[in-house]
Amino acid sequence: MKTYLDCYPCFLRQALEAARMTGADERQQHGVLVRVLDLLRDVDLSGTPPEIGDQVHRLVRQELIDGDPYRAIKDTSTQQALALYPQLQALVREASDPLDTALRLSIAGNIIDLGPGRAYDLWEVVQRILVQPFALDDRIALKEALGRADRVLYLADNAGETVFDRVLIETLDVPVTYVVKGGPTLNDATREDAVAAGLDQVAEVVDNGTDAPGTILARCSSEFRQLYHAADLIIAKGQANYETLSEAGSRVFFLLQVKCPVIGRDAGVPVGSIVLKRG
Amino acid sequence: MKTYLDCYPCFLRQALEAARMTGADERQQHGVLVRVLDLLRDVDLSGTPPEIGDQVHRLVRQELIDGDPYRAIKDTSTQQALALYPQLQALVREASDPLDTALRLSIAGNIIDLGPGRAYDLWEVVQRILVQPFALDDRIALKEALGRADRVLYLADNAGETVFDRVLIETLDVPVTYVVKGGPTLNDATREDAVAAGLDQVAEVVDNGTDAPGTILARCSSEFRQLYHAADLIIAKGQANYETLSEAGSRVFFLLQVKCPVIGRDAGVPVGSIVLKRG
Repeated sequence: MKTYLDCYPCFLRQALEAARMTGADERQQHGVLVRVLDLLRDVDLSGTPPEIGDQVHRLVRQELIDGDPYRAIKDTSTQQALALYPQLQALVREASDPLDTALRLSIAGNIIDLGPGRAYDLWEVVQRILVQPFALDDRIALKEALGRADRVLYLADNAGETVFDRVLIETLDVPVTYVVKGGPTLNDATREDAVAAGLDQVAEVVDNGTDAPGTILARCSSEFRQLYHAADLIIAKGQANYETLSEAGSRVFFLLQVKCPVIGRDAGVPVGSIVLKRG
Repeated sequence: MKTYLDCYPCFLRQALEAARMTGADERQQHGVLVRVLDLLRDVDLSGTPPEIGDQVHRLVRQELIDGDPYRAIKDTSTQQALALYPQLQALVREASDPLDTALRLSIAGNIIDLGPGRAYDLWEVVQRILVQPFALDDRIALKEALGRADRVLYLADNAGETVFDRVLIETLDVPVTYVVKGGPTLNDATREDAVAAGLDQVAEVVDNGTDAPGTILARCSSEFRQLYHAADLIIAKGQANYETLSEAGSRVFFLLQVKCPVIGRDAGVPVGSIVLKRG
């Protein structure tokens, strides 16, 4: 998916938020914004939004010499999600269709995304998404593919969302390789975040070898690319994976909440939609 | 009020929206955004947000050779508000405290502001604000001042909001000079908009001699500045007047809805607040 002009304001807001998370003072924040203005001035719009976001967040990290501005908020997100974990498990246990409920919970967890900059109440989101109709619905195809697959390659998104992924993975009858980022970017989950959420107890945790958001294959390690190309079923969580892999084939199933109008327009669904879409 | 870094993303969004209203194609929109990025790079942050907004919107108008990108939406806003006019009048007529209701309606009309970029339902806003507690409340002082004043200088804000101002002015026992912009900026009311809303039937309509948002005195005509300095009671509508006149004296009463976090922080009240504040 290409980058739209609507993404520009969003990149600026994200850079400012990230700079503030490092504790930067106003002069430093201003310095970062000026660098981002320069970057956006010359950026190649044919790239996907996560490719440009990668440059923006890399610039913030370099400029403010903070390797992981979102560390504290990622830890908090994981703890908050873990506090719900017993309730999430109970919802699946008591569901008439446990896999369906677990898929919905995994999508509910995708609200824990600091890119779009919207406030939310986590438990309210869970309640809503348990009953919300899918705007794009390839659940039947996914369930069939799960029945045939030997292993699932599961592309993670954000810290905290990991806990919701864990509930889904526990519900699957297929072994899972859980892929996190190779380094910090935004509030995306790294190995540290996955382990804090207990993913290592239910899946093989690997990283994709890069600190870019989404899954920018050219930036990933050759080890990850091998896994990716060999996989017969891939679950890709969140907007950034959708944006970067939207040309991927039918092996890929995207699970996400649509949290910004640009992605809504691309997918042809309104903001607030829940999506389970085959590539 | 100074400009905050949080305003940068907002300026970019406004420029993009304004460019689209002119019918600009994507290449032209991109050209405008690049010019705005350059402008923001070098802008003096000690100016107020409307001073910088003025430069941004002026740039869009020049770059796309459209003197009034918001013309169509201003006309629509006025027509929509006029459609409610009989109901607004009835609300005041049937109120136990007509002046209080008319003040609330004037503040309700301030939702018709295309700066903050939020969607709203006009009639829902009216219903809410009729009963919403004031976050800052100098109503008693304003009512006293209205009792003593020979004339009110009323600084208008947006097209459509004008109709709500008309209902308030009809409720006052004091003659009113209604001040609109001297030229188009954003969806701010000009003389054309005021007349379309019937303000010329209830007040003397004058313009402030400039096409800048808010009231930037140094940019206004000497005729307007004379009126301003001579007035013993000024009602100033909306965020941009608050931002540009926030150092004004106790003759000025600000009536507004807080629609952005930057102004909320400055005023010490949450977004969504209704404010009637003496300067």
